[in-house]
Amino acid sequence: MTQFINAREVVVSEAIDGVLRGAGGRLARLDGYPHIKVVVRTDWDKSKVALVSGGGSGHEPAHVGFVGQGMLTAAVCGDIFASPSVDAVLAGILAVTGKAGCLLIVKNYTGDRLNFGLAAERARTFGLNVQMVVVDDDVALPDLPQARGVAGTLFVHKVAGALAEAGESLDDVAAAAREVIAGAVSIGMSLDTCTIPGSPKENRILQGHAELGLGIHGEAGAEQVSFETARQAIEMVVGRLAPAMKPGPHAVLLNNLGGATQLEMSVLAEELAKSAIADQLRWIIGPAAMMTSLDMQGFSVSLIPVSEEAERALLAPAAPTAWPGVAPFGAVEVLPLPDGLTPIQPMPSENPARRTLIARCCDILIDAERALNGLDAKSGDGDTGTTLATAAKDLKQALDRLPLADTTQLYRAIGMELSQTMGGSSGVLLAIFFAAAGDASASGQTWIESLSAGLDRIQQVGGARPGDRTMIDALAPALTHLGTGFATAATAARAGADLTATIGRAKAGRASYVSEDKILGHNDPGAEAVARLFEKLRDACQ
Amino acid sequence: MTQFINAREVVVSEAIDGVLRGAGGRLARLDGYPHIKVVVRTDWDKSKVALVSGGGSGHEPAHVGFVGQGMLTAAVCGDIFASPSVDAVLAGILAVTGKAGCLLIVKNYTGDRLNFGLAAERARTFGLNVQMVVVDDDVALPDLPQARGVAGTLFVHKVAGALAEAGESLDDVAAAAREVIAGAVSIGMSLDTCTIPGSPKENRILQGHAELGLGIHGEAGAEQVSFETARQAIEMVVGRLAPAMKPGPHAVLLNNLGGATQLEMSVLAEELAKSAIADQLRWIIGPAAMMTSLDMQGFSVSLIPVSEEAERALLAPAAPTAWPGVAPFGAVEVLPLPDGLTPIQPMPSENPARRTLIARCCDILIDAERALNGLDAKSGDGDTGTTLATAAKDLKQALDRLPLADTTQLYRAIGMELSQTMGGSSGVLLAIFFAAAGDASASGQTWIESLSAGLDRIQQVGGARPGDRTMIDALAPALTHLGTGFATAATAARAGADLTATIGRAKAGRASYVSEDKILGHNDPGAEAVARLFEKLRDACQ
Repeated sequence: MTQFINAREVVVSEAIDGVLRGAGGRLARLDGYPHIKVVVRTDWDKSKVALVSGGGSGHEPAHVGFVGQGMLTAAVCGDIFASPSVDAVLAGILAVTGKAGCLLIVKNYTGDRLNFGLAAERARTFGLNVQMVVVDDDVALPDLPQARGVAGTLFVHKVAGALAEAGESLDDVAAAAREVIAGAVSIGMSLDTCTIPGSPKENRILQGHAELGLGIHGEAGAEQVSFETARQAIEMVVGRLAPAMKPGPHAVLLNNLGGATQLEMSVLAEELAKSAIADQLRWIIGPAAMMTSLDMQGFSVSLIPVSEEAERALLAPAAPTAWPGVAPFGAVEVLPLPDGLTPIQPMPSENPARRTLIARCCDILIDAERALNGLDAKSGDGDTGTTLATAAKDLKQALDRLPLADTTQLYRAIGMELSQTMGGSSGVLLAIFFAAAGDASASGQTWIESLSAGLDRIQQVGGARPGDRTMIDALAPALTHLGTGFATAATAARAGADLTATIGRAKAGRASYVSEDKILGHNDPGAEAVARLFEKLRDACQ
Repeated sequence: MTQFINAREVVVSEAIDGVLRGAGGRLARLDGYPHIKVVVRTDWDKSKVALVSGGGSGHEPAHVGFVGQGMLTAAVCGDIFASPSVDAVLAGILAVTGKAGCLLIVKNYTGDRLNFGLAAERARTFGLNVQMVVVDDDVALPDLPQARGVAGTLFVHKVAGALAEAGESLDDVAAAAREVIAGAVSIGMSLDTCTIPGSPKENRILQGHAELGLGIHGEAGAEQVSFETARQAIEMVVGRLAPAMKPGPHAVLLNNLGGATQLEMSVLAEELAKSAIADQLRWIIGPAAMMTSLDMQGFSVSLIPVSEEAERALLAPAAPTAWPGVAPFGAVEVLPLPDGLTPIQPMPSENPARRTLIARCCDILIDAERALNGLDAKSGDGDTGTTLATAAKDLKQALDRLPLADTTQLYRAIGMELSQTMGGSSGVLLAIFFAAAGDASASGQTWIESLSAGLDRIQQVGGARPGDRTMIDALAPALTHLGTGFATAATAARAGADLTATIGRAKAGRASYVSEDKILGHNDPGAEAVARLFEKLRDACQ
């Protein structure tokens, strides 16, 4: 089995039950499994015209997904791509039809026409008023007198559904349905065939090609065309539909045939908005999977002209969750970027002691480049030393424009410099460290408290904890002891850094993907950098 | 290109614009393409807590699809499976954050944590109150201290969204988000890998296997497991989730990873309802594609325990159309089959003349079996004669139970007999013919008018017209002339039948698939049957 089903024989009935489980009591099925698979509205009193549709399964969410207030009254489901039996259709009609009568909405396939047709005859012998309309919206085969019914059927469900819900007569509902059918045109395009449950997949579409003008039962498209881009695909589809369009505004239904991604469908929507018929597209339904062909990686475009009446019916409320609604098809609203993305440069200011300290820190890291690269080679790509050294060189160059006299501004400025010059996640983490320290400083905390706040923040954002074999293993103990001077802090940092050599399994960062035996016995390069920093600062203070 | 896109570089921005085209003005984007891809609500006055989420693209409808009243305020989109830049996140925060502050909802991936984290720091330098929560709902790798964030993120969007919409403070919204995160668990399963636009597809899953415990960026699952059925798939998934569940009722989110069909997803929902944890599943969200991994043929199941507060927040209204809503997860409601499926047997009655006529018709068709099979072999599978002869034999057997004295009932009874004994579309069409004739007879029409009504109905239902090379080519002229006697009718039927030999291209029925040279010169077997019937009846009358 290459699909999430249990067996081909039960896939449709199990799927229907799965839908009903989450329907909140709005839907029920008739007690006729396995032969009779009929889903009906539970809020139905037969006082209005009933709408019964259906056909083979494999087109989900059609047709069960469109049963509910404002659309279908009942859906009659066959097996995959197979018409339901006459008995099943009759059961559906009898279950929902009262004095107001019933309209059968049938897609133009021989099996469906005949079985729905005979069921209608049988229902009439009970004195029921039953009419039937046949949807033939596919323009793929213009010479075929019997055009197929595809996704344009949804227009019929929606318009007839709104009128029926409004209490119109069967004659009026059927007339409106026929008018929709007369105006509806559709065509589909696909890059791959569909997978019928339990059957091997047919690979008939050539590489670099698409099928244009396909039905929804896995049958081959009317032609294979070369395929390059979404733009060209929409151009071809629009080229087939445009000659069949009437003047005036239209509603477009952009249907996912099942296996196209939402990214693809949205790109196709965008191309429709740029297409030759864009001016005529007033409303859009979708993009969404409405009338699918199992997992077919394709789409279809359906159009109807919208009179005032059709517009009102399309926009009327509808309960079925599979109906994506009708939205105006319009321009993209673009708002200006907010201020603040270009950081305000702080006013440079002087503080000789801080200038010396920062320069010294930078020199320490520049000197450690080779050693740190060597350690990083054990667990990464051997560039930690270079990354830090490069950032340090850049920071030294920036000393003249730093606000050295203002602690808060200085932390923030260092963070900003690092975020702009230092690549990789360590650059972002250090930028966060200094930005958070600046925040703490702004709220009146001491410099050690501020650095500790930075440490807290990078643990929160980066997710690393002491013992995870990161620079935190040296930085955390160093900051804890910094209150008693650089000497104690350096000793603590060194102890912490050396401890990382005993941690075989890194729990965060890139080293977490490296096997234990490669890193045991070697210090983490980030922790080593911190230890060296504090040791050298201690030496300089002595 | 094997996808409906234009180029990998623009797929995300074109897709976002495609979504905005149909958003009815509810959504806008910031003017920052290509680097800054941020979608915001247009109905937003910054008076409440803003919710900003996002991450790499390829998870559609997440995150743009969840922007709107009651859920996200802004979505920040990276390229496919790539974290958005710090500037992009900052732009999103600045665009929507007012005095009430902003909550960043981030899935637990290093790039997202760091870039959202640094953007938060930068936003704080503007005096904005920004908090960040990290979602880590994936239970696939229990030993990993950094669990990934997957579809359980939707719970956070929904619950935090409801509280923010209700005007709760940032602290309260963030606390609620953290509580949801603490309780949320998810795991995914897939039968195939995803296709990254513009890249060749990786086929790493063995035949008959599935990946269990996968992330949403195309990375390999935690393990490959043997896969047989949907039931066993849900058992495995539930087996991993159950130990992490809390006591009491839960909400389950059944997520399509992108490429599973709606049939499969519904079958999986049904299996959840039969699973070991079914008793604890009070609510269901989906099945629907919410947090996808492009076209991955897989699903994920996410759970959270529902307190009264969580329930209220989950059920609160939400505008985003990608949110499928929360439904009670319940039993399948089954209604009894309607009466009338078992046709009431009419009371038998006698009419010797009609008995003789019907028996004669049957004999004519029985005698014609071989000749009609021969004609059918030219365009079909050579069984028209046998089909008609078998039905005729059955009808002769049924003569004693037919209501021969009542024309209306007799037509209907013959239609019913034929629908039960005669296979194929011709059986259905003849059943419709006699049922419609019965209806006409019931409304007082003559026997010829009644038969004509039957003819009208089979043309309407079957779609064939005179000239389409069907039995109608003989039946229509025969009925037209029947008023002047069997002789004229027979002549007309014969002429019509013989004319079918000159129709090279059948326009309806199975012969429409057969090439012209195979059928030219041979009568259509259905038309021939009708002609023989009338000719033999004429001969018997003479």
